[in-house]
Amino acid sequence: VKESDFHDWLYRQGGLDPAKVSLGPGDDMAIVRFPRDDLLVACDQVLDGVHISLAEHGPEAVGRKALARNLSDIAAMAALPTGCVASVALPRGTEQAVAEGIYRGLRELGDSFNCPLVGGDVAVWDHPVAVSVTVFAGPAGATGGITPIRRTGARAGNALCVTGRLGGGWSSDHHLTFTPRVREAIVLALRYRVRAMIDISDGLARDLGRLCEANGLGAEIWADAIPIAEAAATGRDVSPLQAALGDGEDYELLFALPRGQATRAAGDTNVPCGVTEIGRLTKEPGLVLVHADGRREEIEEAGWDHET
Amino acid sequence: VKESDFHDWLYRQGGLDPAKVSLGPGDDMAIVRFPRDDLLVACDQVLDGVHISLAEHGPEAVGRKALARNLSDIAAMAALPTGCVASVALPRGTEQAVAEGIYRGLRELGDSFNCPLVGGDVAVWDHPVAVSVTVFAGPAGATGGITPIRRTGARAGNALCVTGRLGGGWSSDHHLTFTPRVREAIVLALRYRVRAMIDISDGLARDLGRLCEANGLGAEIWADAIPIAEAAATGRDVSPLQAALGDGEDYELLFALPRGQATRAAGDTNVPCGVTEIGRLTKEPGLVLVHADGRREEIEEAGWDHET
Repeated sequence: VKESDFHDWLYRQGGLDPAKVSLGPGDDMAIVRFPRDDLLVACDQVLDGVHISLAEHGPEAVGRKALARNLSDIAAMAALPTGCVASVALPRGTEQAVAEGIYRGLRELGDSFNCPLVGGDVAVWDHPVAVSVTVFAGPAGATGGITPIRRTGARAGNALCVTGRLGGGWSSDHHLTFTPRVREAIVLALRYRVRAMIDISDGLARDLGRLCEANGLGAEIWADAIPIAEAAATGRDVSPLQAALGDGEDYELLFALPRGQATRAAGDTNVPCGVTEIGRLTKEPGLVLVHADGRREEIEEAGWDHET
Repeated sequence: VKESDFHDWLYRQGGLDPAKVSLGPGDDMAIVRFPRDDLLVACDQVLDGVHISLAEHGPEAVGRKALARNLSDIAAMAALPTGCVASVALPRGTEQAVAEGIYRGLRELGDSFNCPLVGGDVAVWDHPVAVSVTVFAGPAGATGGITPIRRTGARAGNALCVTGRLGGGWSSDHHLTFTPRVREAIVLALRYRVRAMIDISDGLARDLGRLCEANGLGAEIWADAIPIAEAAATGRDVSPLQAALGDGEDYELLFALPRGQATRAAGDTNVPCGVTEIGRLTKEPGLVLVHADGRREEIEEAGWDHET
């Protein structure tokens, strides 16, 4: 099975009652209608040997990353974290200190985002550690007035912006230490008419492709505008630009907003990590990379590929 | 690490803001205070080779059991399911049909309990299948008027009752096919003053021990009153009574209610699986099994042991 195929299949299943489920699978979080409040929920897992190495990175990093990935989904909706639960499968013989370390990594990050760990499950088996975290969030803003920002809602001609710098996810320890852009997303949603947003977890090309697909649009992005991380492509046989386009684990935000607001957003000192305008959404389908010399290159969505 | 030790350690960590988290780890579900609504949440995992065998039982059973265990936690609070998310780790090379089967097993049970699957995560790795499900629930009753029933709240002298029959969890395919007692719990909560409740997942002795500990009480139960499943101890070297006391995977409810209500509850035809009065909560700590001849035997809490 290929993850993306299976996800596509999942999204097609449908059958959810819109009175109860305001937003089903396919966005960064689902939205469940409680009697009065909207509950946003996402879940994501960290598997030893796939997303992290327990032996190399240590238990705190495992717990931290498991929650951080989920907080990045909350950021992508500009929502406010409320709490989380975790299930942890531990290799038989794991020392209590290791189990506590996983918990501590998760808990410390959670506390710093007002996202307490409220429950979970621990089981022991004969295989590597697997941590699955589910986060809950509510609409942000003083009175919950910020409507969660979905992947849909963008228009052709909207500017495309990203936070921070791209391509350093795997080349540095960024994927273990990144700060989910929860606060930045709320600031952006408060100050600009952000039409659609996604977090970049599988590489700019792939996640831009998702944003475009959700809106039935295409995009052109400008090669020399893309903010490339210093560590991009270090020790790897790709160019820094290729790393910024194709590598996963950035956990930055990609969003669309009216063209007239992009310059102001890009200079906004309320977002300390920086915002960069990188292109436009287009009516024509497909992703086009425009080089400094005007050459137009079609981008394959060759982001981080979770295959077989 | 021993699961029970680690759980004990977890429960001691505390530090949760009671204004936001009405009920933290240690009960069947946590309760998170949203602005207006109470969100009940639980998470539980099913690991291939520990809780189930994918090869032997098939993918539908894996998905079904992963959700069913969680629905049993909802039952233990007499709450109403709202939805669920799942993360699934699949062995590399898993066929799409197997992935779909897991989804189908989960989805079919979810739909029959108005508990739609609203999101999740799928990843591929080189190890057996692991499925973690998180469920959300709200207070039950026409206007959400049923306060969720916790493990605490019982008094010495309260009658102890169970639903259904015990001890057949592992000896039959009960652990794959059981119907979580969600409806039964709500009926009981509506018709009786149920003081405290827990689902029996790790064996009567162990889960009764937990109920007693949560209330600072002990219990005596009557050997010849315990409703024993027909399949109890089949093919195993224990007595049916020992199986009913010690075997896990019953997923029946154990609850405490005022003594004067127990006889009526036990004959209540609104609970088709049957309710049986099995003993009393006592001021004296410890669990005592009273045999038909009056002999009193101390019960070790030797339920299903998840060790190392």
